[in-house]
Amino acid sequence: MQIRFYHARILTMEDGKDIFQGEVWTGDDKIIFVGSTEEAAVKLAENTIVFDEEIDCEGNLLMPGFKNAHTHSGMTLLRSFADDLPLAEWLNNRVFPIEAQMTATDIYELSKLAVLEYLTSGITAVFDMYLTPESIADAFDDMGMRCVQVGAVNNFSQSPELVEEMYLKLNAKSPLQSYMLGFHAEYTCSKELLEKIAKLAQKYQAPVFTHLAETQAEVDGCVERYGKTPLAFLDSLGMFDYGGGGYHCVYMSEEDIRIMKDKGLFAVSNPASNLKLASGIAPISAFLEAGVPVALGTDGPASNNCLDMFREMFLVTALAKVREADASAVDAMEVLKMATVNGALAMGLKEADVLAKGKLADMILLDLNQPNMQPLNHIAKNIVYSGSKQNVKMTMIAGKILYRDGEFKTADMPQDIYQKANDIIGRFK
Amino acid sequence: MQIRFYHARILTMEDGKDIFQGEVWTGDDKIIFVGSTEEAAVKLAENTIVFDEEIDCEGNLLMPGFKNAHTHSGMTLLRSFADDLPLAEWLNNRVFPIEAQMTATDIYELSKLAVLEYLTSGITAVFDMYLTPESIADAFDDMGMRCVQVGAVNNFSQSPELVEEMYLKLNAKSPLQSYMLGFHAEYTCSKELLEKIAKLAQKYQAPVFTHLAETQAEVDGCVERYGKTPLAFLDSLGMFDYGGGGYHCVYMSEEDIRIMKDKGLFAVSNPASNLKLASGIAPISAFLEAGVPVALGTDGPASNNCLDMFREMFLVTALAKVREADASAVDAMEVLKMATVNGALAMGLKEADVLAKGKLADMILLDLNQPNMQPLNHIAKNIVYSGSKQNVKMTMIAGKILYRDGEFKTADMPQDIYQKANDIIGRFK
Repeated sequence: MQIRFYHARILTMEDGKDIFQGEVWTGDDKIIFVGSTEEAAVKLAENTIVFDEEIDCEGNLLMPGFKNAHTHSGMTLLRSFADDLPLAEWLNNRVFPIEAQMTATDIYELSKLAVLEYLTSGITAVFDMYLTPESIADAFDDMGMRCVQVGAVNNFSQSPELVEEMYLKLNAKSPLQSYMLGFHAEYTCSKELLEKIAKLAQKYQAPVFTHLAETQAEVDGCVERYGKTPLAFLDSLGMFDYGGGGYHCVYMSEEDIRIMKDKGLFAVSNPASNLKLASGIAPISAFLEAGVPVALGTDGPASNNCLDMFREMFLVTALAKVREADASAVDAMEVLKMATVNGALAMGLKEADVLAKGKLADMILLDLNQPNMQPLNHIAKNIVYSGSKQNVKMTMIAGKILYRDGEFKTADMPQDIYQKANDIIGRFK
Repeated sequence: MQIRFYHARILTMEDGKDIFQGEVWTGDDKIIFVGSTEEAAVKLAENTIVFDEEIDCEGNLLMPGFKNAHTHSGMTLLRSFADDLPLAEWLNNRVFPIEAQMTATDIYELSKLAVLEYLTSGITAVFDMYLTPESIADAFDDMGMRCVQVGAVNNFSQSPELVEEMYLKLNAKSPLQSYMLGFHAEYTCSKELLEKIAKLAQKYQAPVFTHLAETQAEVDGCVERYGKTPLAFLDSLGMFDYGGGGYHCVYMSEEDIRIMKDKGLFAVSNPASNLKLASGIAPISAFLEAGVPVALGTDGPASNNCLDMFREMFLVTALAKVREADASAVDAMEVLKMATVNGALAMGLKEADVLAKGKLADMILLDLNQPNMQPLNHIAKNIVYSGSKQNVKMTMIAGKILYRDGEFKTADMPQDIYQKANDIIGRFK
């Protein structure tokens, strides 16, 4: 399957490369050509290439798909189920009792609902942490979407043995699925359990990801337990000797940020969730100053409540501006890098970071012919400060167009998926 | 022109009324019927009503259009023109020099671009403060959109005499246009000028609106000049004896909030702009506790940068949650009231607040058959926490459908409007 995209503006996200007018060609799951209109014309004259489809982009923008670097897809069930409640009541009295009853099949269906939403937001890969890794991988495979799962083990569910089993099994499952070492959070895991995960990190020389310093209470608790911040404590176990990173990273000391930099860790920021759950505002400017790469994630739909990278992109810079009392904090291009390149690198998707020959054909087309994208003073700033799901004209994953002009090209139809989600929540009411 | 909307979910926004399944009928610019499916069936059997169009809403949600209670529409020109700069540099070196060169015709064209964007976000009326009131009124009239303008006078442009002239002229211009007394801000107006506006308020027994307490520096400056906060000082001039309110209202003392309540003033919050310009987070919970009505606005596209009420709705509650460290702060239904009823009342649009017989047919249809609106645990919370422009299926103003399924039904075509905006910015580059 070879597809030609022409009359496009192209933002490859390669360092220092400006937007240019040209073409992108895909062959199977890879990009086989990226170049200017002139370069494309030369190549077309030289070769007899048979395209299965030729798409006139009408001046709209091709760029790498967004990487949602922290989510819990199966929590679509609990969207708007228990909002506007104090955090402890929300979690203990509403979320946990329902989650305890959810089956692997439920989570399979609910993950599919999340995939539909990811596609509408131009998200081509997610970093997912949830309860039933195998049924989640099946859901993403069946929908044709790329998913990197991460271990979710804590004292109450899963085990280090399961994490290792999934690490071996899901990394061999399909080109679209992968799995990274991880655990839920310091405060939900015993020291013994954490030591076992750290041993896996050493054994496989692999990075580890976890919820990290999401609330002040979490940090205070760890200091009380171990005399160290969560990051310093986990690092002292050898957890991050092969990299990895933390989700949220709201309450970070200078020493924490130094460890992040030294170990090459990623700070995955989740600004909407951190507001909605009243957690706080992360020190993004401090990460950037220290050279710590920042990626972006939506967190789960029960705490956000939507799976929209445009919201996260606006918030990560707008909140940095108000936190630092500096309207010049965190430039728009830096934000686009967080949402694409940095996310891909955090998730181990080294072939999904930029648009270039040989890279994965995980790509989106953004509609610039909408009032919120006009005038064309600065396209990158338009996307970050003014962009919306409404601008996503197409989402392609592994060379397949899964969403285009508001229509889903997935195997399952949206109405069936919605019906199943409503049936599941009906069982619990 | 009579239109029947059937198979709808309906949120009238009347106090205490839940969402129900039913029909809304419009006749010319008014709503002529709102009722349940059963009530509609009875009425259809009784009467021989000839509809010009019957629209199957397929279970989607009809509700009052959003009221954007603070904007500067003509600033579309400066969207993404000078972001990521310190505030003073942005304003003095980039925004003001361009604004000084803009003609009434430029602002006419640029306001039309804003109208297109308002329609995509389900906004049916705006509260606009900008430079050339007559050309702005023409633009909104020509696009078929409701606009309440407010006096923008300051020491450098316009005059109290022009404010009075526009008050008389634009309130008589057309059913879609109106004009309220106002001035730019305390810090840009001499005491003499402010006294003249206060006299107009007394003469016409009319409310007055202005930028108020947007930054700490603004408050400090006023205290230095007059020994009072901006609100206390303006109130001491008799400015608010007939109501009105302030835009932004970020830095408000307890005494300020007491004055707001006593004078029946509206606090118009602009959360996205307050973040992006590093101004701060407004005390929304304190307003609600004191019984001060809060409305919502996008502010202008140069400072936001988009004109999207979904962004403002999410932010006004999410920022209150993080400001108060309380995830239960500001319930979703309260937010919908801010974005509809309160905005309408602030803007003097008493007939555009709710869906009911005899009210203005300013109404939107929100698409619930999208992944971000599923499952249907709580529709109001879905809209506030998860909603997006992508969910706006239709925007109707004064009984006319101006936007439907992504297509504009306005007199001017989007491409022509985009072209003119790009031509204008081209002149200044």
